[in-house]
Amino acid sequence: MIRADVIAAAEQAADLAGAVIRPLFRSSLLVEAKGDASPVTKADRDAEAAIRAFLADRFPDHGVIGEEHGEHRPDAEWVWVLDPIDGTRAFVTGRPLFGSLIGLLHRGVPVLGIIDQPVTGERWLGVAGERTRFRAPLGGQAACRPCGRVGDAELSCTSPDMFLPPDRPGFERLRGAARRVTWGGDCYAYGLLAIGLVDIVVDATMKIWDWAALVPVVEGAGGRVTGWRGEALRPDADGRVLAVGDAALLPEAVRLLTDR
Amino acid sequence: MIRADVIAAAEQAADLAGAVIRPLFRSSLLVEAKGDASPVTKADRDAEAAIRAFLADRFPDHGVIGEEHGEHRPDAEWVWVLDPIDGTRAFVTGRPLFGSLIGLLHRGVPVLGIIDQPVTGERWLGVAGERTRFRAPLGGQAACRPCGRVGDAELSCTSPDMFLPPDRPGFERLRGAARRVTWGGDCYAYGLLAIGLVDIVVDATMKIWDWAALVPVVEGAGGRVTGWRGEALRPDADGRVLAVGDAALLPEAVRLLTDR
Repeated sequence: MIRADVIAAAEQAADLAGAVIRPLFRSSLLVEAKGDASPVTKADRDAEAAIRAFLADRFPDHGVIGEEHGEHRPDAEWVWVLDPIDGTRAFVTGRPLFGSLIGLLHRGVPVLGIIDQPVTGERWLGVAGERTRFRAPLGGQAACRPCGRVGDAELSCTSPDMFLPPDRPGFERLRGAARRVTWGGDCYAYGLLAIGLVDIVVDATMKIWDWAALVPVVEGAGGRVTGWRGEALRPDADGRVLAVGDAALLPEAVRLLTDR
Repeated sequence: MIRADVIAAAEQAADLAGAVIRPLFRSSLLVEAKGDASPVTKADRDAEAAIRAFLADRFPDHGVIGEEHGEHRPDAEWVWVLDPIDGTRAFVTGRPLFGSLIGLLHRGVPVLGIIDQPVTGERWLGVAGERTRFRAPLGGQAACRPCGRVGDAELSCTSPDMFLPPDRPGFERLRGAARRVTWGGDCYAYGLLAIGLVDIVVDATMKIWDWAALVPVVEGAGGRVTGWRGEALRPDADGRVLAVGDAALLPEAVRLLTDR
């Protein structure tokens, strides 16, 4: 049971990220930087610093792990996991498909997650044991759809370049078996899975701040997020992430990814 | 010089497309269809039929070419070129990166183009001899940015799967030389080029309804849209399309694509 003030603080953290990030999106600063990620890195760092200060004030005994400013008390009972700009390339090229990720672990288990898209105003909020809520200015409802076979599944992946050589055969087997693949999306693809428009998302080389927020969002919409062997994601996860909208897909997807 | 009533009619045509398409985006119909394009095909056909009826009434001597309903008077002096849903996969998976394309040819030369995103409300309007206008609820300004070398360029491509074997070596050379590549986007990627956030877009197997509207949008923002050999796009084009935000990129990009 997650306290209401903790949920409210998570939403405020996402609001803080949006306030820093929004003015930079498609700004002349980005046009002039011409593909250089440094203005984005600065916004990412500034947003994370603002969130950390806010959370430290509200919950001084909680830990924090963030992409930009490292770990603080990572062994605390409650640990926030932050990535204000997930999807840097989408951000840099002006696509409104990046997201701010706010996650919360309880004894290493993801129990709260927000995927926030500060430009479109979309926000997914997942809380352990509750149905995922979706603020949906562009439409859609938080509920994964049934899909029993990989051959019927819409697969989504951020980029064909993200799979290291050892992971490629597994990915290619899954991709070959799926009905179709669409490219691009980062965390947003998991949001689309949580509104029933994508059936499988597969990623590799994910850090804890990339996946912690996704688990409660997807699972509160009826899906599952695991490692490639179907194992639960915990802080020592190996970076390979598999999300399915219908748990019935999990055994077949795991078999294709691992060839076991 | 394109008449104001022709420009206004093009905008009305885009409005008609949006009115048909918008209710379907992320609807339960798409969730239930589970990756099946047929509800989208129906919307595409219905939107194109509505636009054709409207244009036939307004401009009975104009021709029309559309993806869904074929050609009518394709040799007329003025020919409209329509694709109400460019980016079917983006549409089906709930990404607001598809577009409605309304183009107009004068004696085979693209002289007017609209890229309309009916969910975000973004609209690019290009008219030969005029600066491209951009309705920008998510931010951005219609102007390509300078970029003199492919090595500095942000490249964007819809999918790695769209290049047929004969086109792959050229694409791989360009991709290898570019600073970075981002995936996904269809017509929207050309819109991002026209607001200075992408420097090169390359596509293959494009039909006339995929590219006709893009040319005036990009060129009115300072960029160029050609075939892979740098040739002007005309109705007999071979489907290979290259867009650059800075004309200085054109010789190097053409050399990489064609190895000449």
